[in-house]
Amino acid sequence: MRLLSRAAATARTFRVIQTTASSSSYSTLPKLPSNLPKLDLKAIPPVPDTYKPYAYGATAALALIYLLSGSRKKEEPKLSPEDKFAKYTKSFGSDSGATKDGSSKKQAAAAVDPEDAKPMRDRMSAFVRKMQNQIVAGLDGLEIQAAKELGVKPKLFVRDEWLRPEGGHGLSCVIQDGNVFEKAGVLVSVVHGPASANLIKQMRARGKDNVLAEDGKYEFFAAGCSMVLHPHNPNAPTAHLNYRYFELIEEGKEKPVASWFGGGCDLTPSYYYEEDATHFHKVIKDVCDNHDAEYYPKFKKWCDEYFYIPHRKETRGVGGIFFDDLEHGDQKKLFKFVEQCGLSFVDQYVPIMQRRWNQPFSPEMKQWQQLRRGRYVEFNLVYDRGTKFGLVTPGARIESIMCSLPLTARWEYMHEPAAGSREAQLVEVLKAPKNYV
Amino acid sequence: MRLLSRAAATARTFRVIQTTASSSSYSTLPKLPSNLPKLDLKAIPPVPDTYKPYAYGATAALALIYLLSGSRKKEEPKLSPEDKFAKYTKSFGSDSGATKDGSSKKQAAAAVDPEDAKPMRDRMSAFVRKMQNQIVAGLDGLEIQAAKELGVKPKLFVRDEWLRPEGGHGLSCVIQDGNVFEKAGVLVSVVHGPASANLIKQMRARGKDNVLAEDGKYEFFAAGCSMVLHPHNPNAPTAHLNYRYFELIEEGKEKPVASWFGGGCDLTPSYYYEEDATHFHKVIKDVCDNHDAEYYPKFKKWCDEYFYIPHRKETRGVGGIFFDDLEHGDQKKLFKFVEQCGLSFVDQYVPIMQRRWNQPFSPEMKQWQQLRRGRYVEFNLVYDRGTKFGLVTPGARIESIMCSLPLTARWEYMHEPAAGSREAQLVEVLKAPKNYV
Repeated sequence: MRLLSRAAATARTFRVIQTTASSSSYSTLPKLPSNLPKLDLKAIPPVPDTYKPYAYGATAALALIYLLSGSRKKEEPKLSPEDKFAKYTKSFGSDSGATKDGSSKKQAAAAVDPEDAKPMRDRMSAFVRKMQNQIVAGLDGLEIQAAKELGVKPKLFVRDEWLRPEGGHGLSCVIQDGNVFEKAGVLVSVVHGPASANLIKQMRARGKDNVLAEDGKYEFFAAGCSMVLHPHNPNAPTAHLNYRYFELIEEGKEKPVASWFGGGCDLTPSYYYEEDATHFHKVIKDVCDNHDAEYYPKFKKWCDEYFYIPHRKETRGVGGIFFDDLEHGDQKKLFKFVEQCGLSFVDQYVPIMQRRWNQPFSPEMKQWQQLRRGRYVEFNLVYDRGTKFGLVTPGARIESIMCSLPLTARWEYMHEPAAGSREAQLVEVLKAPKNYV
Repeated sequence: MRLLSRAAATARTFRVIQTTASSSSYSTLPKLPSNLPKLDLKAIPPVPDTYKPYAYGATAALALIYLLSGSRKKEEPKLSPEDKFAKYTKSFGSDSGATKDGSSKKQAAAAVDPEDAKPMRDRMSAFVRKMQNQIVAGLDGLEIQAAKELGVKPKLFVRDEWLRPEGGHGLSCVIQDGNVFEKAGVLVSVVHGPASANLIKQMRARGKDNVLAEDGKYEFFAAGCSMVLHPHNPNAPTAHLNYRYFELIEEGKEKPVASWFGGGCDLTPSYYYEEDATHFHKVIKDVCDNHDAEYYPKFKKWCDEYFYIPHRKETRGVGGIFFDDLEHGDQKKLFKFVEQCGLSFVDQYVPIMQRRWNQPFSPEMKQWQQLRRGRYVEFNLVYDRGTKFGLVTPGARIESIMCSLPLTARWEYMHEPAAGSREAQLVEVLKAPKNYV
């Protein structure tokens, strides 16, 4: 079997971001390359008026994006690239709930958050941008280091802002045919407007009936960050994340009649590596356990059920967590949970990619990955609620919805992996989801 | 622009099947190569007991398949390959309604068909196999000639028979990564059994309410041939065809309470060639006009509407015809219409492929084709009634349903063809379907 590799070196000699066993902070990050390329990216959009960062995470993350994009504004404080990166990464440790020793749990319990007084829609609008910036910066870092390793130009995220004429806006950050990623999209959307009859009907069907008056007129508000990452290397898994907040408001009123959180994250490998699945699950289980011991088992099961492809009789991948209609109890605590889920994604995924992005593979492995991409397309277009909802929503942004699809996919008639092969091993795992932690 | 070609010769020097302006019969066919390869294909399934060919079309077509597959049975009459091919092709002229001078119309009016006494389910079961054999033989011919031209081995259809445990059977004929076709599937299925509550609900929703008793128990019968052809060459269009017959029968009764025909054919080019669209439409318009002057305009419009992709605001291709619930009037005449539609497909498509299969193209054109394949996947998985119905039908054969998907597809974020380009020209045509005849 002829083995291919995107670089002569193996993946394990390559570290973008050092993580240690005792802490998931990024204190040991290597220095950024000093000669970053000037890229033709759009100017960074202004932070919404409603936004006041909890600490300095999002501001510093934005600063890093400015830096990477080469479009520095004059009012930018004069920090060296290294200082900016350090400032940006410093914010990760305190926000992430993914520490192994429970220190952040203690911090969370002790903290009095001045943000708690603000309307949740403002907090969530700000948070999804913060999460987006953090993920984009983390993945750009991976691309930069990969490019360095390969001796080529890095392909960083291209930013694409949009306005919804009916109300709302968004920012799509996309890499296409990068060094690590075949396609990567990290998308934020904050949208609002009158709730259509169709939407209200859907809301009734999913149990919001008791709060909706028979002839009432409602508006909706939704803020979310969604992400799909499709790496080139068939050893490296596709990852998906989505965290969102939804409100239904009676026309002319201020306070929503219903509001809830939804989301989750899941991993879709083409080749099964138990240690990858275990790591991905372990990080998010720690976040869940930090909030409620029932969360992880419940949301893990929900994920396996949601990402099931009935016509293939298999799950899309090795899962993660999934939840929806999270609305009971203290809303501020629920927000804290969602926030810590979102901010732990870099911890969940980057260490896996460090191992896999440049691992040797054969053309046959690439072909198998393409077939698995076909399954991904099948799930997203046939079953995914978000995609289906988007496709029938007037004024929805099709390019954002379709961004989750891989760059390339393949369908072969009657393809079956050979018994005992690594390909068959994956299918076996997907036929009967197991516990990875 | 670097131009590629699958052979040094241009397409126009290559003719598999000669057609003349005055007649669409195949009297001027070149001789078949005498050294046909022995292929490892399954034995041809027996013709159903209920089947008596109208003329000798299907038998001869089966004979050709035997010949091509190299698995000749002893009872086969001893004809030379050329005689067999001539015998097979001779049947096309009399069955096809696509002649330009209306001679077959006169024949059809004069003929007394001994088949008319048979139950429609038997006639349709036999016909879909006949149509399948004719199409497979026509396309295998194309592959053989292409292989000869390219100096490589031909890749003929592989036959895959299946049984539905709940009742019924089918035969799938598939080429994957051939010389002309990236993927081609010509599938027959004849299925029956108890009609599920879900199916009855669907039937009520589409207007069969008046014939269905409130608490009645029903069985269904369906026989159809469906086909999707995805050629390699971006200049060559994808084609789709489906003709089917459906019955609803009250449990314990013989005569169906409702029965109808449905189907159509349509063309999906990646690059727009007006003469191809015109030819495709002209042949099927002639068949329609032979039966009812209202058919073509009505079914052409229906096709444009059915294959519309709302979220892209464009049609899937340049259309053709589409109809469903064809049940009023003389059932025998309706069958004759469907039969002539099906048997004219080779006339519709092969002359186009003769022009396009080996026309030079650039890597950029191949990439554009892949993006168009992505749109094809979107239509089929999100909107196509047949696919959606198949995916929720217990015991449905997934490999047959998914056979319509291309071998490879591509999705790029925010891809837009350059203004004035040939790619933009195609999109323009798809935004506003026009009359091609």
